[in-house]
Amino acid sequence: MRTAVLSEPGELAVEERPDPDPAPDEVLVAVGEVGICGSDLHYYEHGRIGDYVVEDPLILGHESAGEVVAVGDEVSGLESGDRVALEPGVPCRRCAHCKRGEYNLCPDVTFMATPPDDGAFAEYVAWPADFAYRLPPDVSTREGALCEPLSVGVHVARRGDIGVGDSVLITGAGPIGLLAMEAARAAGATRIFVSDVVESKLDRAEERGADATIDPREEDLGEAVARHTGGEGVDVVVEASGAESAIAGSLDAVRRGGTVVFVGLADEAEVPLDVLDIVDNELDVRGSFRYRNTYPAAIDLLADGEVDVEGIVDFEMGLGEVDAAFRRAMDPETVKGMVTIEE
Amino acid sequence: MRTAVLSEPGELAVEERPDPDPAPDEVLVAVGEVGICGSDLHYYEHGRIGDYVVEDPLILGHESAGEVVAVGDEVSGLESGDRVALEPGVPCRRCAHCKRGEYNLCPDVTFMATPPDDGAFAEYVAWPADFAYRLPPDVSTREGALCEPLSVGVHVARRGDIGVGDSVLITGAGPIGLLAMEAARAAGATRIFVSDVVESKLDRAEERGADATIDPREEDLGEAVARHTGGEGVDVVVEASGAESAIAGSLDAVRRGGTVVFVGLADEAEVPLDVLDIVDNELDVRGSFRYRNTYPAAIDLLADGEVDVEGIVDFEMGLGEVDAAFRRAMDPETVKGMVTIEE
Amino acid sequence: MRTAVLSEPGELAVEERPDPDPAPDEVLVAVGEVGICGSDLHYYEHGRIGDYVVEDPLILGHESAGEVVAVGDEVSGLESGDRVALEPGVPCRRCAHCKRGEYNLCPDVTFMATPPDDGAFAEYVAWPADFAYRLPPDVSTREGALCEPLSVGVHVARRGDIGVGDSVLITGAGPIGLLAMEAARAAGATRIFVSDVVESKLDRAEERGADATIDPREEDLGEAVARHTGGEGVDVVVEASGAESAIAGSLDAVRRGGTVVFVGLADEAEVPLDVLDIVDNELDVRGSFRYRNTYPAAIDLLADGEVDVEGIVDFEMGLGEVDAAFRRAMDPETVKGMVTIEE
Amino acid sequence: MRTAVLSEPGELAVEERPDPDPAPDEVLVAVGEVGICGSDLHYYEHGRIGDYVVEDPLILGHESAGEVVAVGDEVSGLESGDRVALEPGVPCRRCAHCKRGEYNLCPDVTFMATPPDDGAFAEYVAWPADFAYRLPPDVSTREGALCEPLSVGVHVARRGDIGVGDSVLITGAGPIGLLAMEAARAAGATRIFVSDVVESKLDRAEERGADATIDPREEDLGEAVARHTGGEGVDVVVEASGAESAIAGSLDAVRRGGTVVFVGLADEAEVPLDVLDIVDNELDVRGSFRYRNTYPAAIDLLADGEVDVEGIVDFEMGLGEVDAAFRRAMDPETVKGMVTIEE
Repeated sequence: MRTAVLSEPGELAVEERPDPDPAPDEVLVAVGEVGICGSDLHYYEHGRIGDYVVEDPLILGHESAGEVVAVGDEVSGLESGDRVALEPGVPCRRCAHCKRGEYNLCPDVTFMATPPDDGAFAEYVAWPADFAYRLPPDVSTREGALCEPLSVGVHVARRGDIGVGDSVLITGAGPIGLLAMEAARAAGATRIFVSDVVESKLDRAEERGADATIDPREEDLGEAVARHTGGEGVDVVVEASGAESAIAGSLDAVRRGGTVVFVGLADEAEVPLDVLDIVDNELDVRGSFRYRNTYPAAIDLLADGEVDVEGIVDFEMGLGEVDAAFRRAMDPETVKGMVTIEE
Repeated sequence: MRTAVLSEPGELAVEERPDPDPAPDEVLVAVGEVGICGSDLHYYEHGRIGDYVVEDPLILGHESAGEVVAVGDEVSGLESGDRVALEPGVPCRRCAHCKRGEYNLCPDVTFMATPPDDGAFAEYVAWPADFAYRLPPDVSTREGALCEPLSVGVHVARRGDIGVGDSVLITGAGPIGLLAMEAARAAGATRIFVSDVVESKLDRAEERGADATIDPREEDLGEAVARHTGGEGVDVVVEASGAESAIAGSLDAVRRGGTVVFVGLADEAEVPLDVLDIVDNELDVRGSFRYRNTYPAAIDLLADGEVDVEGIVDFEMGLGEVDAAFRRAMDPETVKGMVTIEE
Repeated sequence: MRTAVLSEPGELAVEERPDPDPAPDEVLVAVGEVGICGSDLHYYEHGRIGDYVVEDPLILGHESAGEVVAVGDEVSGLESGDRVALEPGVPCRRCAHCKRGEYNLCPDVTFMATPPDDGAFAEYVAWPADFAYRLPPDVSTREGALCEPLSVGVHVARRGDIGVGDSVLITGAGPIGLLAMEAARAAGATRIFVSDVVESKLDRAEERGADATIDPREEDLGEAVARHTGGEGVDVVVEASGAESAIAGSLDAVRRGGTVVFVGLADEAEVPLDVLDIVDNELDVRGSFRYRNTYPAAIDLLADGEVDVEGIVDFEMGLGEVDAAFRRAMDPETVKGMVTIEE
Repeated sequence: MRTAVLSEPGELAVEERPDPDPAPDEVLVAVGEVGICGSDLHYYEHGRIGDYVVEDPLILGHESAGEVVAVGDEVSGLESGDRVALEPGVPCRRCAHCKRGEYNLCPDVTFMATPPDDGAFAEYVAWPADFAYRLPPDVSTREGALCEPLSVGVHVARRGDIGVGDSVLITGAGPIGLLAMEAARAAGATRIFVSDVVESKLDRAEERGADATIDPREEDLGEAVARHTGGEGVDVVVEASGAESAIAGSLDAVRRGGTVVFVGLADEAEVPLDVLDIVDNELDVRGSFRYRNTYPAAIDLLADGEVDVEGIVDFEMGLGEVDAAFRRAMDPETVKGMVTIEE
C-alpha cells in the first residue's frame, strides 16, 4: 500500500509498505481522509516533539476516517462497508488510569504518528475495533476524520465544566480553539469571546459566531474581557494558543471562582503566573490532554447538526501531493488542511 | 391597585388592594405579564396543595416580569425603567441550605402565591432587588415571565448532569417537559424523546424538535426507548408527568449507570419502584425541586436565541378576564396561558 | 487440586479438579483464605440468584487472598512469593462502561462464583495480574480476603459522597453494613447510627463505634433519627438490609437535600416509595453495585490501621469442613465466616 | 471594654472602647480565647497586607470563641450561656457568589481584623447569630477559636477532593499545613508527607503522624516524593508554604491526573510554572481561599475526637500581654500563640 513517510525533518515522501493484517480484535480500514495536525507539522519541521524523536521512518497522520474492508474473528458490531472514525490512541487497558476511565493518561498508550507508532497517512490501517466508531449516513468521512480535533474541544468543554449560560474566552483561533468554541456552544455557553493575533483567524471566529473577537496586540486581554462582561470576567477561559502572554492573561480574564483550561502547548518551558491570583480568586486551573470517551458524543453532535467542523477546512489535496499539502498547511493563516487517500 | 384574588376554590376575582411600598432593599415593579402555572390552577380548583391551604384570600401568580417604577434606598444596579424578571422565591439567606447555595431547599422561603404569601397577579409588586433580574432589549417581558418555568427546566438539566451527546427521555409534554427539553438541548443533548398521552402535546413536542415521540398507551415506555436506542436506554430520563406508570417506567428506559430526574408531582403518595433495578444498574434517581441560580442563565439563553419559550404559549388574556383565563388554562390541551396586566 | 463445588442446592463437597495454568497475563495464586458471602449462601440454599442459575457444578467463593506461586510471561510487577488480594470481577476492558472507568457495570464481566464462572474455594486460582493486588507486610491474608466486602463499603461511601462532618444512618448491621460503617468513618463521617433487628448485631455495631443503634421494631426509623439529629435527619443513609421497611424508611431518615444509597438486595421486586418526598426534598437516591477502583484504597486503609475488618469474623474453618462452615454461616447471628485453604 | 488595637506598625496596645450593642440578628459574645494568625502578625509588622492598609487604629484578631451574654430580638437557637465559635467573615448574602454558596468569594464580606473592620482581641464582640456556632460540652473554647484555622484545612481538603486511600504531600508545617494534615487524614488520606525548612516543625509534623517528612534543602521535593511513592507521585499536593520553590515543586510531586491546591500566600507576585506539565499530565491546580460551610464540620470533627488542634498551640498569654505575645509569635519556630481575654 502507499503511505506518507517522514524519514528526516522536511523529508516526507510517498512510500510503499506491506498491507497490514487485522488482529482478531481489529478491523482493517481503507482510509478515506486524514487531517494534517499541528503535531504532524512539528515532526515534519523539527523531527521531534519534546522527548518524542523520529528515529526511524514514521508514517504521519492521526486524524482519520475510512471504510471497513475486513474484520478480525473476534470483532462484533462492525462489518465491511461500515464507515468509521478512528480514535488514534489505544491505551493498555490495565493500568490504574485505564481502570479509572482516564485512559488518555495511560503511560503505555499506542498513539498514531507518535514515534515509534505509525499513523494514518496510508491506504490501510488495522485498528482495534473498539476504537473504530461507526459513522451514521449523515456524517461525512471528512467529518469523521475531524472527530479527532473536535474530541479535543469536547474534552476541553468537559474539563472546564462548561454549562448553560456560561461566558467563555478562547485564546487562539486555530483548529483547537475553533472546535473548542463549537463544543462550548454545544454545551450551553451563551457568550464566547475569541482572541488571536492573526486577523484572518479572528474574522473566521466571528463568521463562526464569536460574540466578540480580541486582538491582544491592540487591547489588553483582561481589559477587553472586563469591557465585554461588565467588569466581571468570564466563567471559563480556554487557553488554546500556547502563547506566554495568553497563558498569563487568562488569569486576568476569568471571574473570581472561575476556571481556566490549558490545552495549548506552551513554547516556553516555564511561564510566570500570578499564584496569589489563583489563591485569592480561588481559581481552578486545569490541564486538558487529548481526550477520552469523546468519539460517541462528537459523532452525535455532528449527526445532530449541532456543530460545524467542515468550515475549518481550508483545502484538500491527494496523498500523492502530501508534501505540498504540508507546506501549505504551515502557512499561519491556514486552520486545517486535509489529505484524501485516493485509490 | 388591581389584583386577582382567590377567596374560595373556584372564586377568583379582580380586587383593589393598596399599592405596595418597596423596602430599602426592594424594587417596585409594574407587572407586565404573568403566566398561569399548574399550581395556580390547583389552588383555584382545590384551595390547597398538600399542607398549603388557602385560608385567607390570596393573590395568585408567580411567573412574572415587568418594569421597575421605584427603587429602595439601598438598591444599586437597578433603576426605574429597567424591565425585570422576578424570581418568586426569596429564601432566609441564613440557614445551612442558603449558605451552601441550595437556597431552593430553605425551609423559610417566601414564595409568591403560596399561602400565606401573595403572588404577582397585581399591578404592582415590591420585591427584593437581588431577586429581580434585568432583561436585555432582546428578551421580551413575556419571555421574562417565562424564565420561571424555564428555570425549572434548567435546574432539571443540571440535576441530571445533562451534557454534550447525551440521549434524554422526557415523560410529560406540559410546560415543564417542553422547557426541560429546551434546557436539555441547550446543554448538549443530541437525541431527545418525549412521551405523553395527549396527542396534541406530542405533536407540539415533535414540532419543537423531539427526535421521536412515544404514546405509552400504544407502546411500552421501556420498549419504545430500547427500540430508539439500540437496546441500550437513554442516558437521562426527566420524569415530568407525575404519572405513576411513567415514574415506574423511567427505571426501564434509562441505561445502566444512567440518571433519572423526578420533577413531576406524583398524584399518588407512594409509587412501587423496582429497587433491585436501582442497585443492579447503579442508577442515580434525583429529585428536582424548583430551581436555584438559574435566572441569569435562563436570560442569557433567551438573549442568545438558544431556547424558545414563547412557542409554548397558547393564549393571552387581560387581568380583567383572569377567571376566564384560568378556565381556559384548565383544558388538558393547553400548555401555557398568560395574563397581561394592562394599565 | 482440591476445590469446594456446589452441584445441587445444599450439596457442597470437596472435589478434585485439575490445577489451572496461568495465561500470559495471569498469575497463579495458592489461595490462603476465602470469606463466605451472602451470595455464596444464597446459591448454596437456592441454586440460583435471580437469572443466575447453577446448572453445572460451580466452585463457590469470591472473597479471597493468597500467595503468588507462578506468573505468566507478560506479567510485570508481581512475582512468586507476593501475597495478593484477588478482585473477583474482571471486565471486558472494551465496552463504553469499561472505557468510562465504571467497569463494575460492564455487561461482559467474568465474576468469580457467578454461573458459569468458577470461584476461589480452591487450592489454586489463575487470575489476571492487574486484578491481583500485592499486600504489604502489615496486611494479613485474611484482611486481604476481606478487601472484597470492604470494597463494597468503600464504593458505597464514594457513591454517597460521604465527607468530613457528615452524619450517616446505616440500615443493616451485616458485613456490608459494618464495613460501610468503617468506610464512612474513614471518609470523615462523625456521627454514625446503625439499625438492625438482630440484637447481637446491634451490640456489635455499638462495640465497633456506632454513635447510636436503632431497633426499628421498637422505634420508627425516621423518628429515631430525628431524635438523634435535632429533627434534621442524616446527611446520608446507607440502606444495606434489603428490608422493605428500611428502604421506605430511608427517605424519612435523610435530611432535605441529602443522599440515600441503596446497596442491600431487596427481597421484594417492587417497594412502594414516596416519590413526592424525593422531589420536594430534592433527594439523591443512588444504587451502589459491587465496586470499582477500590482495592488499592482498601489495602491502604488496612495498612494504615484506619479500618478494622478482622473484627467482623465470627469463625474460621478448613476447606475440608466447608459444608459445616456454610451451615454455621447461615445462622442469622453470624456476620462473617472464613474458610482456610490449608495445605 | 478592653481591646488590643494596632495604631501603627509595631504599636499594639490595650485600649478602652465602648461595649458593642448587638443588632436584632446578632449575639453579644464575651470573648474567651483568640488565636494569633499570620495575617495579624503581618499587619503588626507591616501595617498592611497587599491593598489592605491599616489607616485607622484597628482591633486585630479573627480566630475567636467565647460565651454568649446577650442575644438580639430576632435571634433564635442561641441563648446566653452558650459557648460559641465565631466565623469571622460575614458575606453580603445577596451577590451571585453568596447565592451559589461560595460566600467566601463575596466581594462585600465583612472580615474581622481586615481594615476597616475590627477584630476579636476585645472583651466583647457583637456578631450575626448565624455566624456564631454553638460548641458542645466536649469542645473547649480554645478548640472553638481554632475552628478558624481548622476551617482553612477542611476547605483545602474539600478543594483537593481528598478521599479514602489518597496520598498527600503538604508543603509547609505551620498552622495551616498542620491542620490541613488533620483534615486530610479525617477525609481518608492514608499516606501524608510533610515538607518544611524548619527542623522543629518537621519534628512536630512527625509527632503528629506524618508518614515521612522532607527538608527540601536536603532533598529535591519531587525526588523525595517519588522515592516515597514508588515513582508515581502523590494524589494531592497541598501547598501551604507560599515559598516559590515549593509552589514550582508541587507540580513535580503530584501524580499524573492529580490535584495541587495552593493555599499558601506567595511572597513573589509571579512564580514561573511549568505549564506543559499541567497540560501533559492533565493536572488540576486549584486555589483555596479561606473557607465556606466548614464550621459545623470542624466542630463535629473536634467533638468526635477525629482531629487535634490543641497540639499546635505553643503558648498562651493574657490580653494585657498582647504585645509580648505577638513578639513571641513572630519566632519562626512558633506554630500558634493564643491570647486569653481574662476578665
